[in-house]
Amino acid sequence: MSRPIITLTTDFGSSHYVGQLKGVLAGMAPEAIVMDLTHSIQPQAILEGAIVLQDSVPHFPLGSIHIAVVDPGVGTSRGLIAAEIGDWTFIGPDNGLFSGLLQDWPLRRVVRLNQPRWWRSQVSHTFHGRDIMAPVAAHLANGEPLESFGVLQTDVVKLEIPVPQVETVVTAQDEITVKGETLIADSYGNMLTNIRRERLLQVLELEQINLMRVEVENRQNGERTEIDFVHTYGEREPGTLIALFGSSGRLELGIVNGNAAKIFPLGATVLASC
Amino acid sequence: MSRPIITLTTDFGSSHYVGQLKGVLAGMAPEAIVMDLTHSIQPQAILEGAIVLQDSVPHFPLGSIHIAVVDPGVGTSRGLIAAEIGDWTFIGPDNGLFSGLLQDWPLRRVVRLNQPRWWRSQVSHTFHGRDIMAPVAAHLANGEPLESFGVLQTDVVKLEIPVPQVETVVTAQDEITVKGETLIADSYGNMLTNIRRERLLQVLELEQINLMRVEVENRQNGERTEIDFVHTYGEREPGTLIALFGSSGRLELGIVNGNAAKIFPLGATVLASC
Amino acid sequence: MSRPIITLTTDFGSSHYVGQLKGVLAGMAPEAIVMDLTHSIQPQAILEGAIVLQDSVPHFPLGSIHIAVVDPGVGTSRGLIAAEIGDWTFIGPDNGLFSGLLQDWPLRRVVRLNQPRWWRSQVSHTFHGRDIMAPVAAHLANGEPLESFGVLQTDVVKLEIPVPQVETVVTAQDEITVKGETLIADSYGNMLTNIRRERLLQVLELEQINLMRVEVENRQNGERTEIDFVHTYGEREPGTLIALFGSSGRLELGIVNGNAAKIFPLGATVLASC
Repeated sequence: MSRPIITLTTDFGSSHYVGQLKGVLAGMAPEAIVMDLTHSIQPQAILEGAIVLQDSVPHFPLGSIHIAVVDPGVGTSRGLIAAEIGDWTFIGPDNGLFSGLLQDWPLRRVVRLNQPRWWRSQVSHTFHGRDIMAPVAAHLANGEPLESFGVLQTDVVKLEIPVPQVETVVTAQDEITVKGETLIADSYGNMLTNIRRERLLQVLELEQINLMRVEVENRQNGERTEIDFVHTYGEREPGTLIALFGSSGRLELGIVNGNAAKIFPLGATVLASC
Repeated sequence: MSRPIITLTTDFGSSHYVGQLKGVLAGMAPEAIVMDLTHSIQPQAILEGAIVLQDSVPHFPLGSIHIAVVDPGVGTSRGLIAAEIGDWTFIGPDNGLFSGLLQDWPLRRVVRLNQPRWWRSQVSHTFHGRDIMAPVAAHLANGEPLESFGVLQTDVVKLEIPVPQVETVVTAQDEITVKGETLIADSYGNMLTNIRRERLLQVLELEQINLMRVEVENRQNGERTEIDFVHTYGEREPGTLIALFGSSGRLELGIVNGNAAKIFPLGATVLASC
Repeated sequence: MSRPIITLTTDFGSSHYVGQLKGVLAGMAPEAIVMDLTHSIQPQAILEGAIVLQDSVPHFPLGSIHIAVVDPGVGTSRGLIAAEIGDWTFIGPDNGLFSGLLQDWPLRRVVRLNQPRWWRSQVSHTFHGRDIMAPVAAHLANGEPLESFGVLQTDVVKLEIPVPQVETVVTAQDEITVKGETLIADSYGNMLTNIRRERLLQVLELEQINLMRVEVENRQNGERTEIDFVHTYGEREPGTLIALFGSSGRLELGIVNGNAAKIFPLGATVLASC
């Protein structure tokens, strides 16, 4: 049988807290393969964590286990959950961190973790990732069924992830405009939006999108600036502002060999018209 | 038999030097599981390395092997050692890097590495982590006994880690004050002190600490500022300055969703009274 | 049989793009050991990638597979290749990323990747690392021969890596000067040059180099500043500017416990005389 996979998505940065969590997993699930998904979520940025999980987890094997720790409420009454979403299992705080995935995949089962016998004997008030989530992930990887870890609940906390709005302008060409916004910046400084290629194809009833007009709206004065829509970064000279569908299928704003996050804020309005 | 574990704690940052060291381990100990503890120790910061090892290694399985490379004296006459401390084995420079662990665990055996037959055939003057420590760790993981690598010595270099001082003020309540200081900042910007929960419980002869007065002393004028003592970050609003016992049992100063390291220096005096 | 090794060298930083690529590898080559060489190449810095690969890959076992993604031309007509260089196999864009290695090792065979049946079914325009290179590496690790992945080509794109120049000054001592330049900065801020110890020994017909005069030339006025040549950092006081042969055999400029990259630019002229 293939070895179980446990991934880690946290806002721990490059700190030794990651190492401590891995130490616990190494001791409790020595057969598991432990992989970093990322530890670079901005501190406490639940929305960013939700988008990163939504865009990344589908690249991992079915059956893999994903620990997610972006947990500003650690130690308060917020719940901890283990959830089967799509064909993966997730362990993390019940604070909306899985909302992105739940846009795309069904919530199959979820338990609220309330069985301390599976946890470490001493649980810190501030590091449930190490003391509760890691042990639960380890026991899951070792074959313990989901129900063992807590009581079934019917739903999870969901974050309000802004959804793009479709506006049809009745003109000679019946132009359709989708109004979205920038959600997160990636490590290159590209601004990822909530406008996703697959959904847009459905809305526009198209097979593919070859040409699009992309504009960014200035919040102060409502003025719109058009940005070149391209297919890949190499199509324009360094320094050019461009819009394209990135590797996760999201419309993104970028600067060739540059950092668009220095220009555009999170939540900037982006309009895509066909 | 379970696969041997080798962890890495360095000040290499995210550089390719980490990759080179792992390349050597992959070649010499293909069965070992190599894990990053952290590579984010500030360059040359031996004290920080010592505290991180002290707080983190106890989360790893007994028998695991830990390479630690914070080594400003590389290539000079400083020794390199392999040491059994508690139930783990450590390989690193004899410069005080294991002083934190030695506050909590016994030094069982230590050898000074002086057997080049276990090293790489070419040893760089500036990267003993790759050319000496990694090969020694690999041979240890492969079952070679500690004595093979060098001559037994009776002690190791110890760093002066400041110890908190206890002051009893004779008042109506016989208040006890523990005077400590901030030692390192973690990746969230929380300032970790040398005041540790377990030791404090012993000193105060208490089962647990529910309420405490925490103050920070201004070095210039000796004025003390009180800081809210809480159990977890979620108890206060974002931006609030708080003190709490963190996940390693150390009293730490933090700002909810903020960065306390921008306010407090290393070595700031912290007073905790019960 | 030992498990195949796949390493990753990218400019992805600590982002979730690394995680996505590893997710694909975990699914397609579950037996492979996946190792980070580094993800800290400056964005789009092909030369830096080339030097890091040249200095690092020789520390990995023979037969290991190396994915390298520094790919400003992703999605354009630049080719993707799988190349046997020395005793390793490399997968990456044909943009010069392997030029450093090719200074030291023979190009044995190279194919241009043009067989989409080995790729992921959906290939993004902007992330060939995840959608083409990772699957090809996985199939290679699983034993598929190089020829399966594309058509043999006879050469690869080569980057102009500056080569040091040798000047013999006819004096009483017949002094030989080698004129090189700084190529990249490492994570400590040490400036690595193109003057390499082994080559210099050949040129100078020496067994070893104990004393050397190292100077840096000011571009504006041509003035030369001498820098202490030492064997290791611990030989001088913190803050001292020094030159030494680093762990990859390159002459490097550093500041003891400091950051030389703040003083010297990339491409600074360095003269070493014996």
